Amino acid sequence: MAQAAILGAGYMGSALSFPLADNGVQVRLWGTWLDDDVIDASKSGVHPKLQHPLPEAVRLFHSEELEEAVKGADFCVVAVTSEGFVPVLQRLLEVLPNPCPLFTVTKGFVRQEGIVVRVSEAAHMLFEKRFSGSHLHWGSIGGPVKAVELSQRVPSATVFAHNFPAIRRLIRLFPTGYYRVETTRDIAGVEICSAFKNIYSIALGIHDGLYSDIPDRLFHNFKSLLFNQSVREMAVVVGAAGGKTQTVFDLAGVGDLHVTSSSGRNRRFGEYIGRGLGAREAREHMNREGEVAEGYHTLELGLSYLRRCGKDICAELPLFHMLHRIIIEESELREEIERFLTVYMDR
Amino acid sequence: MAQAAILGAGYMGSALSFPLADNGVQVRLWGTWLDDDVIDASKSGVHPKLQHPLPEAVRLFHSEELEEAVKGADFCVVAVTSEGFVPVLQRLLEVLPNPCPLFTVTKGFVRQEGIVVRVSEAAHMLFEKRFSGSHLHWGSIGGPVKAVELSQRVPSATVFAHNFPAIRRLIRLFPTGYYRVETTRDIAGVEICSAFKNIYSIALGIHDGLYSDIPDRLFHNFKSLLFNQSVREMAVVVGAAGGKTQTVFDLAGVGDLHVTSSSGRNRRFGEYIGRGLGAREAREHMNREGEVAEGYHTLELGLSYLRRCGKDICAELPLFHMLHRIIIEESELREEIERFLTVYMDR
Repeated sequence: MAQAAILGAGYMGSALSFPLADNGVQVRLWGTWLDDDVIDASKSGVHPKLQHPLPEAVRLFHSEELEEAVKGADFCVVAVTSEGFVPVLQRLLEVLPNPCPLFTVTKGFVRQEGIVVRVSEAAHMLFEKRFSGSHLHWGSIGGPVKAVELSQRVPSATVFAHNFPAIRRLIRLFPTGYYRVETTRDIAGVEICSAFKNIYSIALGIHDGLYSDIPDRLFHNFKSLLFNQSVREMAVVVGAAGGKTQTVFDLAGVGDLHVTSSSGRNRRFGEYIGRGLGAREAREHMNREGEVAEGYHTLELGLSYLRRCGKDICAELPLFHMLHRIIIEESELREEIERFLTVYMDR
Repeated sequence: MAQAAILGAGYMGSALSFPLADNGVQVRLWGTWLDDDVIDASKSGVHPKLQHPLPEAVRLFHSEELEEAVKGADFCVVAVTSEGFVPVLQRLLEVLPNPCPLFTVTKGFVRQEGIVVRVSEAAHMLFEKRFSGSHLHWGSIGGPVKAVELSQRVPSATVFAHNFPAIRRLIRLFPTGYYRVETTRDIAGVEICSAFKNIYSIALGIHDGLYSDIPDRLFHNFKSLLFNQSVREMAVVVGAAGGKTQTVFDLAGVGDLHVTSSSGRNRRFGEYIGRGLGAREAREHMNREGEVAEGYHTLELGLSYLRRCGKDICAELPLFHMLHRIIIEESELREEIERFLTVYMDR
């Protein structure tokens, strides 16, 4: 029977245990040093984020039990925030005796060796140091899947971007009657969509926060314009990064932006801003709720990444820049929207 | 000063008078034989659908005043339902002394000479009979624009598909600071997106009708899966019809599906079905409200059109077929959703 180790007991790591367990995979769920309470609560019955029990067969491990959790695993799934990705991967690589295929649901960018890179790039750099000369078998998981719904077995579709045909054998352990898994080789495309859809979902949250008091919420045209512009800008970034624009127009881009802009933490972060909180206050507000809007960090590091893409694409990303100014530079919200619209309507 | 005649005083015809009037175009708005009450009400102050006054400079014409309404117009905009398109165009062509550029916001298919054709194809057939040997200068208007919001000058973006460069001079009369107008030569793509997004918005309405009682509305994954599948299927149809798939991934497809699935008549028609009304009852319910869900007619005629495309694309359109069975064949809703999901999850 296949053995999987999931690293990170937050929403998505925990939710992935459902399709795997339903397929008879033996799942070990390891909590980071931030997750010890989650593991304790899950052991006594209910996962505190998903708010219901995990599948019975899932074995739970505290942060100090990493080595035991991954021992003999056929593959690992890294499911932590982008801020936790490097430290967790480093600890994983320390305890792994041999190369092991890795999947991740972590989205966004990290700093590594002084530059801003995608998580898969960071993983390759760290893996090379540990297992020099070996190939890292890698899968980036994207697509429109809210973790809570996956754990309730709501019909969902996902896309796995992988780098070696051999890993498809492992990918076949994930699909179920409620979880469709598609595959692609476009890792850059899936990663960038997964990261940037968080950024653009903030824009759609801002929109709804700003205009939700208008009778009949009559701003659908503007919202759809923003949705469409988000898709366009993701296609520009994916193209510049060497990915395939078709990836943007499918589950990883359009689909994931749809679900992420409909609900969730990034959208809520935007709504707080639209309702009048400054970006800093909105972050503090979410911190107090124990939540992180990943899009914030992606926005913070994304500009460096875009510059590293080495092409002059910034003029094609007016919405990205609007968000950067509002959220990172803390410029005035309505002025920035006007500025965006002036550019958008005139070009 | 440019003169425009808009034929049809419903939502979109009336709304288009706003950007045109704001640009100083002299607009004549003609109501069909179904619109006489709308014209009367608008003359006394408030447009009954848009629920506020039209721009002051707009001149209003009753159904019997068609000849006067179009006299000397630089172009006409046909803005009637797909069922009204052929009769209105026939009457227009009878009273036009010379060929005149035509735009339309009418979406969907019509029967003409025994076959199901797109509205632009029907227009060319009728135009050729009246002005044999002349070229019809044509523009199909698509994109994510709700009429009521356009009339309130909410920021909006649209796409005009045209067949002759000469018509761009007229298209430049439409854009304003709140109404971005893009252009393409892909008439088939824009027309098919405009028609099929109505069909697929019914699916998203059905989804929300079915699951709106679930606590926290936890079916975003399924909804995004349906949204994504809708985009995919539109790309299949556009490709088979000789259009460009890129058209689907932009304002005409993704953008318009977003706005149409968020609000409006097709979505509402689907919601009624999701909440338990049969397709026939849902139609009657909307008729009593004085509203038409255009997607119904598109679904009814669309299958003939798809078969006429001459390619075996039906296997690639499981969502279209689910909707056809539920709405036209009146099959059982939940069984059809299960059937769709079985196909979707397995393929």
